[in-house]
Order: sequence, then C-alpha cells, then structure tokens
Amino acid sequence: MELFLLSNGKLSGEDELLGYAKSRLLAMIERHGITSAVFVPYALIRTDYDQRAQELAQTLGIQVTSIHHAESPAAAIDQAQCILVSGGNTWMLNQMLHEKGLIVPIQRAVRERGVPYVGWSAGCNVATPSIRTTNDMPVRNSVVLPALGLFPVQINPHYIDAHISGHMGETRDERLAEFCAVNPSESVVALREGSLLHIEGNDLRYFSARDQGFKVFRHGVEAREYDNTQALRPLVPFTCH
Amino acid sequence: MELFLLSNGKLSGEDELLGYAKSRLLAMIERHGITSAVFVPYALIRTDYDQRAQELAQTLGIQVTSIHHAESPAAAIDQAQCILVSGGNTWMLNQMLHEKGLIVPIQRAVRERGVPYVGWSAGCNVATPSIRTTNDMPVRNSVVLPALGLFPVQINPHYIDAHISGHMGETRDERLAEFCAVNPSESVVALREGSLLHIEGNDLRYFSARDQGFKVFRHGVEAREYDNTQALRPLVPFTCH
Repeated sequence: MELFLLSNGKLSGEDELLGYAKSRLLAMIERHGITSAVFVPYALIRTDYDQRAQELAQTLGIQVTSIHHAESPAAAIDQAQCILVSGGNTWMLNQMLHEKGLIVPIQRAVRERGVPYVGWSAGCNVATPSIRTTNDMPVRNSVVLPALGLFPVQINPHYIDAHISGHMGETRDERLAEFCAVNPSESVVALREGSLLHIEGNDLRYFSARDQGFKVFRHGVEAREYDNTQALRPLVPFTCH
Repeated sequence: MELFLLSNGKLSGEDELLGYAKSRLLAMIERHGITSAVFVPYALIRTDYDQRAQELAQTLGIQVTSIHHAESPAAAIDQAQCILVSGGNTWMLNQMLHEKGLIVPIQRAVRERGVPYVGWSAGCNVATPSIRTTNDMPVRNSVVLPALGLFPVQINPHYIDAHISGHMGETRDERLAEFCAVNPSESVVALREGSLLHIEGNDLRYFSARDQGFKVFRHGVEAREYDNTQALRPLVPFTCH
C-alpha cells in the first residue's frame, strides 16, 4: 500500500498544485513506472474538473484523466495506475464516493493491488475512517458516513493554531478537543499546511515543507507537537520513521 | 412568534454571556411577564450544563432550568415560558433535538403559543431550515437533517471576512459561495459577531453591537453588506425594518 496524505494542495505563495510534494511524488511515479492517473475531482465545486486534471498532468508529467468522464467510474478505478483525490468540499467528495460506488473499488485498488493513493485536504480526509474531523461546511444534505479508512486514524488537514482576532467561534484547538471529548478512544493527527504523511508498504514517514511538526490530539492529554512519527506508534500498524 | 437569533454568545472582551443583547432580552422578558426559561444545552460539549444555566439566570434575572433534568424534555418545552438554546457544536445540538423528540414541540411552542426563542451560534443555526451553513466540525456520526426552520433562510453565524495569513483552506466567503453554488435557489444571511436578528410577530429587525452590517450570499450575485433588513424582503415573510 502506498499513500500520500497531504494537508493541502497549494502552499501560500506557490502557484503549483502539489508543488511542495512534487519531488516525492515524481520519485513514486518513477519507482512504479506510472504513466497515467485517475483523478477524483468530486470535492471541487467551483473549479473546472478538466482544467485541474490538466494542471496535475503538467506537474506530474503523466496523463491525468478525470473520473467524471468514465462510463463506469468503478471500472476506471479498477484499471488505474495511480489515484489522485482533490481537495475542496469533503461532504461533496465523500457523498459522491458512496453514490458512485467507489468506496470498495478504491479500497481494493489501494490495499490489494498497491495502487498509489494521493489525497490532499478533502482527499486526505476521506482516506481516514470518517469525515468527522473535516473543517468543511456541510453544504448539502448528507450523512457523516464512514470514509475510505485507508489510514486508521482521523486527520485534521490545514491545521493552524492561530485564530482571527475578535472571532468568538470555537478555535480549531477547541473543535479538536470537542472531537476527542465526544470520541475519547480516538486520536486526531493535525497536519499543518505544507506537510504530509507518506505510507509506503509498512513504513510511515512525515515531511513538512516548512520544517514544522504535527500535533496529536487525544482526550485528557494536552496536545503536543512532534517532528517525527514516533508519537504515532501506538496508533498505527506501520513502522514509524 | 418571537425569535432572537444571535451570531454569538459572548463578545470579544466581554465576560457576560448574551451581554450585548441584554437590554433587548430584558425588554422581551418584561413585555411577556416571563419568570422562568427552559435552557437547551445540548450543543455544549466541555461546559457544565448547570453552570451555564446559572450564568444565564444571573444575566436575565429569571429562573433558568436545563432541560437535561426534565423527565420528559418534550413536556418541559410544552410548559416553557421562554426557550434559550446555547451555542457549542451544532451537530450535537441538532442530533439531540431529533433524538429527544424536541423538533415539533419547539416548533409548536414558538409558532402556536408564541413562546420566545433565543438562540446563539449553534442555537441560531438550528432555528434555520437546516444546519448546512454551520461552521462546526461534525464530531459524531450524524446526519444533516432538517433543523427547526423557525426562520426561513440559512444563517451563517460568527461571520468574518478576515482570514489567517498562510492558511490555505477555503475562506469563509469561499465556503459560502460553495453553498450557494450547490444550492442556487437559496440565500445565506451572514451575521457578524455581536449582531442579531429579532423577529417579533410580523416584524424583523437587525441590531449590531458594533454598528456593522450583515452580508447576504446568493448564487451568481456578489455578496453585499447591508445595515438594515430591506435586503431580506424578498426572502422572508416579515415586515423588514
């Protein structure tokens, strides 16, 4: 199994989508001899699917086809060499994965055939057991269904501990503490902008383009910052580097 | 029908819950001869229900009882002189309103018996047709069910158009534009901190403790700021002042 779980797509001040992860993604593409990828664009609401696919094709130097063109989306996944899952609105994305019957095909492709999965933001959220730690607005009538569960722990992407002066709504840290209070046996890995988790076979690695750590939230424990994956050892079945 | 729909509970730099709306709430209490209120605390996750009820009792000068003590929550609503609905997590709140069978009792109390409804943040969200415009994290498995629908238009509380430098997730404005793109026949009223809508009988009034306006988001129309309710005339069945 190979997963790239990215906090975000574009980094502040950078124009290239996935730019901060590019060297790692190109190495993966070369290692697997990948020539094309299937793009899952359903999280995008106000962005053209094909334009985004084209952007990805340029960055990665492979053919990228948006799955909305496929007569059978499940068959497209069955034949995919690589799966790219866009950020946007997590509710739209997870609902569409269920409606199009893609949950099991993606799980099989990734787990059984070793097809690399690259997901950023919403695409990272749906790789966890559920979308309960998304930051997104539930813009449509929807259900908080299980997601792909490729990675066994909830992730909060775009994590930031600053907050806007004068804003009296709950801060991100308070929201995550609420999650842990409601789900005391679970943990949340909070990924800052420009950071990613890379699962390759049995190995788990962490990378931050800005040399920042990630945080782990657990009920009854003060959230701490870590710069390597050792803290995740009790939570995941991977070798933590 | 009388509704107070508040963007938030506490204002930045103020300690008193509902302080910025206090004079209006006290006038309502006097006008109706209210001596007690039922408090719906289910949005609170890490705050003691009774402590919060006590805070409200002190601010409003009436007896406030949290509904979680009631043997029959629906009966407590049937006997309520006033209903206070706390902010916190909108998902928890809406799910509990449904699980405890409170949707119809509250609708009847407010619409048929004229029991005043005061809701802030999450309590404001559930007074609209659905919780699709909440800012909150869906911390539990839940469904985006219809909410109370006392006010006929979606509200986005805690609205703020600033954003945190370096944060690459969607801004609030982008999230609301997404909502409108997915729901092109609907509108969203975005209420800034310290502002409220007051519906009394057939009259709708807007108040901001900081003399700020509210915004209305609609698909295909640039969001604009308004300082009186005229802009809401095509959207609501009330007389807009």
